[in-house]
Amino acid sequence: MAHIDLGIDEKEFPGVTGPMRYRPETAKPLNELAEVLLRGPHTLPAGERELIAAYVSGRNECTFCCASHSAFAAAQLDEGMSLVDQVRADLDTAPISAKLRALLRIAGAVQISGRNVTTELVADARAEGATDLEIHDTVLIAAAFCMFNRYVDGLGTFAPEGQEAYAGMAHRIVEFGYGSPAGAPAV
Amino acid sequence: MAHIDLGIDEKEFPGVTGPMRYRPETAKPLNELAEVLLRGPHTLPAGERELIAAYVSGRNECTFCCASHSAFAAAQLDEGMSLVDQVRADLDTAPISAKLRALLRIAGAVQISGRNVTTELVADARAEGATDLEIHDTVLIAAAFCMFNRYVDGLGTFAPEGQEAYAGMAHRIVEFGYGSPAGAPAV
Repeated sequence: MAHIDLGIDEKEFPGVTGPMRYRPETAKPLNELAEVLLRGPHTLPAGERELIAAYVSGRNECTFCCASHSAFAAAQLDEGMSLVDQVRADLDTAPISAKLRALLRIAGAVQISGRNVTTELVADARAEGATDLEIHDTVLIAAAFCMFNRYVDGLGTFAPEGQEAYAGMAHRIVEFGYGSPAGAPAV
Repeated sequence: MAHIDLGIDEKEFPGVTGPMRYRPETAKPLNELAEVLLRGPHTLPAGERELIAAYVSGRNECTFCCASHSAFAAAQLDEGMSLVDQVRADLDTAPISAKLRALLRIAGAVQISGRNVTTELVADARAEGATDLEIHDTVLIAAAFCMFNRYVDGLGTFAPEGQEAYAGMAHRIVEFGYGSPAGAPAV
């Protein structure tokens, strides 16, 4: 049970969706941030940006965010969940581009501390073709999920078991986006 | 020097203000989030909310965010910078209310991991009179600064030395708010 009374049925509004209904004033910018970073026009495909979110959430051991953004990534990557699982299991050997691997290494550094991002990590990403904007957004996606993960777990919210609930959320996010009135808000 | 070319003079736009000028699409929700959490109508005074931000930023060793939010807190607390320094030096003995101390303990847990927030920490805060909304916002302020700190340091931005630059920012934030066109955007 959540640490505070969110005024919702937590099975109906799991994870971040409960606090977002509880505090719409903060949900608005949080959803807008997620929408720009994960779904806005970009040189990095949405599936790869969701993969960064899932990777960081896994390292933060946030069950809800990792399961949901893994599902959102899988729904938008040709290789589906098997690629997400491979990246999360072993970044060094996962069958992804050298650029995405270098960006995920930056994200992994950010997950520990911003000060862990070295000039070498950034130079490696640039050498593989990453642009300044891609590096900027990778840092901010990783940083943002260090926030979302702490928000979700710091309030003790409920995380459904199994993949079914998250697949349903993925359908809504891919179709309608973050914070759309058409779908339950779900980061 | 920052890890990417932010297209600014970093002395003129230190810390988070550089990335915010570089990427206005993400600056907008980030400033809106800071405005709601730190300056919106609330039962916790703005100075106390800025103190939570400064405390978390100090624990994350983010020079720019800690110095700036310490200045913003000091500018809005009767006791000024000496209280900020005491809280940062020793939370257990700092002369603050039992409620604020309990909320800062929750923030300190969030800084490590959302999963470190225990039912006991929350019960202690509630026993000292903290409301659900105050607990919610404390968790989200602490989580948000785990993002801002990583954003600022993950891009290797410049942090001015000394207190003068931050006092100037404090004046603008207290007068105009976060992201106001009247002041340089400065989280």
